[in-house]
Amino acid sequence: MRALRFEKGELKVTDRPYPDSSSETVVKVLLAGICDTDLQIVRGYFGFEGTLGHEFVGIIENSPDRSRIGKRVVGEINAGCGRCNLCRSGDTRHCPERSVLGILKRDGSFADYLQLPEENLLEVPDGVPTEAAVFTEPLAAACGVLERTRIGSDSRVAVIGDGKIGLLCARVLLGSGVRPLLIGKHEAKLRIASNWGIETVKLDQLKTERLFDQVVECSGSSDGLQLALSIIKPRGEVVLKSTYHGNTEINSSMLVVDEISIIGSRCGRFAPALDLLSKGLDLRPLIDEEYLLKDGLKAMERAATKGVLKVLLRPS
Amino acid sequence: MRALRFEKGELKVTDRPYPDSSSETVVKVLLAGICDTDLQIVRGYFGFEGTLGHEFVGIIENSPDRSRIGKRVVGEINAGCGRCNLCRSGDTRHCPERSVLGILKRDGSFADYLQLPEENLLEVPDGVPTEAAVFTEPLAAACGVLERTRIGSDSRVAVIGDGKIGLLCARVLLGSGVRPLLIGKHEAKLRIASNWGIETVKLDQLKTERLFDQVVECSGSSDGLQLALSIIKPRGEVVLKSTYHGNTEINSSMLVVDEISIIGSRCGRFAPALDLLSKGLDLRPLIDEEYLLKDGLKAMERAATKGVLKVLLRPS
Repeated sequence: MRALRFEKGELKVTDRPYPDSSSETVVKVLLAGICDTDLQIVRGYFGFEGTLGHEFVGIIENSPDRSRIGKRVVGEINAGCGRCNLCRSGDTRHCPERSVLGILKRDGSFADYLQLPEENLLEVPDGVPTEAAVFTEPLAAACGVLERTRIGSDSRVAVIGDGKIGLLCARVLLGSGVRPLLIGKHEAKLRIASNWGIETVKLDQLKTERLFDQVVECSGSSDGLQLALSIIKPRGEVVLKSTYHGNTEINSSMLVVDEISIIGSRCGRFAPALDLLSKGLDLRPLIDEEYLLKDGLKAMERAATKGVLKVLLRPS
Repeated sequence: MRALRFEKGELKVTDRPYPDSSSETVVKVLLAGICDTDLQIVRGYFGFEGTLGHEFVGIIENSPDRSRIGKRVVGEINAGCGRCNLCRSGDTRHCPERSVLGILKRDGSFADYLQLPEENLLEVPDGVPTEAAVFTEPLAAACGVLERTRIGSDSRVAVIGDGKIGLLCARVLLGSGVRPLLIGKHEAKLRIASNWGIETVKLDQLKTERLFDQVVECSGSSDGLQLALSIIKPRGEVVLKSTYHGNTEINSSMLVVDEISIIGSRCGRFAPALDLLSKGLDLRPLIDEEYLLKDGLKAMERAATKGVLKVLLRPS
C-alpha cells in the first residue's frame, strides 16, 4: 500500500506493507485531513518518523469483531497500554506508554490503510457525510476546551486565532450556548465565523481591555499568549490550544496577583464531536482543497501555505 | 501615631495622623508580621508608597458598630468598592477598584493604628494567642490553594520552597488530609515540617520524576516553576503561590501536550484559617524574632536576612 511518510528529514509517498491485523483493527482510509501538527512534524519539532496523519474517516476492513467489518468509522488517536490507572479508567489520552496515530510510535492515516485498537474506532452516524466526519478529531479537540474549563453560558469568552482550530473552538463554544468573540487577522476566515453567527474582530481593531472570563489561545504563536494575558479578567482562564516551537516569557507575579490560570488542552472525546456533526454542523466552509494521496507532497505544500484552511487527502 | 513607611525610595519610622474613623473602623495594632511582599515593596517592585504591613492582630478602638469596640480582631486585606459584581457576591479580592492594606492605595499595619472597613474585621477566638493569630493572613493565603485546585485526599502533592508560605501550605495540606512532600534547601526549616509530620526532601536529593498531581510553587524564584514543571504529572496542576520580580520562560507546547494547568493563587479566606488556629495549630516554630515598632528598620533588615522565617513587630 502507499503511505505519505516523513523519514530521515524527508517527506515522500512510498510503498509500505499492509498493516498487521493480528491484534488490531485495519481500516481502509476514505479521506484524511492535514493538521498543523503534521506540518510541525515535517519541520522536525516532534521527533516523529513514520506515516503522517491522525485525522481520517475509513471503512473497517479487518477486525477481531467480524460484525464491524464494512462500518464507516473515525478513530480516537491515542492508543494506551490498557493496564495503567488512566487506561483502566477509560481515558488513554495521557497513558505514559501510549502511541498516537501519526504523531508518536504509530503510523498514521495518510495511507491506503491504517491500524488502531478496536475500541478506538467509533462508527460515523449515517447522515454525516464523510467530508464532515473527517473533522471529527479536530472538532473533538475543540470540544476538549469545555472539559478543561469552567466556561458557563454567562461566561465572556474570546478565541484568539482564526485558523482551523480557532474557528472550530469558536463554533463549539457557540453550540454550547456561549457567545464567543473570535479575534483574527484574516477577513475571509473571520467571515466564515460571522456566517455561523459568531461575533468577530480584526486584531488591529481590538481594544485590549481585561473583559474576558476565558480566552482560548489558538494562534499558534507566543504573541497569542501575551494577547490572552492582556484581555483576561482576574481569576480568568487562558486555555492553550495550539502548540508551537520555542518558549514564551510569562510574568508569573501577574498570574499570582490576578489569580489567572493557564490551562493546556489537547485532545477531546469523539462522542460530543460526532453528536454535533450528526446534528448537521456544516464544516465544509473550512475545506480548502482535496488532493489524491499520490499527490501528498503537493497537498502538504498547499496546507503549509499562509491563509489556507483544511486540506484533505483521498487515497483513491 | 508612629508608622513604618516606604516613601520616595526610603524606609523610615515616622509620625502620622490618627486614622480617619468617620467611615471605617480603627484598630489599635497589637502585633504585626513582616511578609516577603513587604520586602519586595521596599525593593520597589509593587510601586506602593505608604505605611507597610498587611498581617496584624489588633483591638477595635473605634467602630460604627459600638458593640465591637474592644474586640480582638484580624482583618482581610482587600477593601472593595462595594458596588461591583464581585463585591456584591461577597468577594472583594479582585474588585478592580480595591485597595489592599499596606500594598495598594491603603496604609498598612506597621503602625500604632490602622483603618479597615468594618466587614473586613473578624474576631479572634478566645483560645487563640495573639502570637498565633498574627499568622491568620498568610495561613489564609495557604488555605487559598485548596480553593483553586482539585486537590483531593488521594492527590499526590509536592510543595516547593521551605520558606514561610511553603511551610504554611504544606501544613494546611496536611490538615486537609493530604500527605504533601515538602521540597526545600534548609535543614532547619525542613525540620519544622518534619516535626509536624510532613514528609520532606532536600532539593539536591529529589528525584525529578513526574509523579505529582499538584505542585505548589512557593520558592519565590523562576527555578521553582521550572522544577514544578519537571515533577508534575500530565493533567496536573502547578499552583503559583509566591511572587517574584521578572519573567519566566515556559514551554507552552509542553503545557498543551501534557494538559498541564498553571494556576495563580494569592489571598485566601480568613474563616478556614481562624478555624485551624482555634483547633490549636501551633505556628510558633515559624517565629524568628519580635521587634518593637520603633525598631522597624532593624526588623525589616532581619526579615530580609537569608534563612530567616517570621519577624514580628509590636507597637508597644
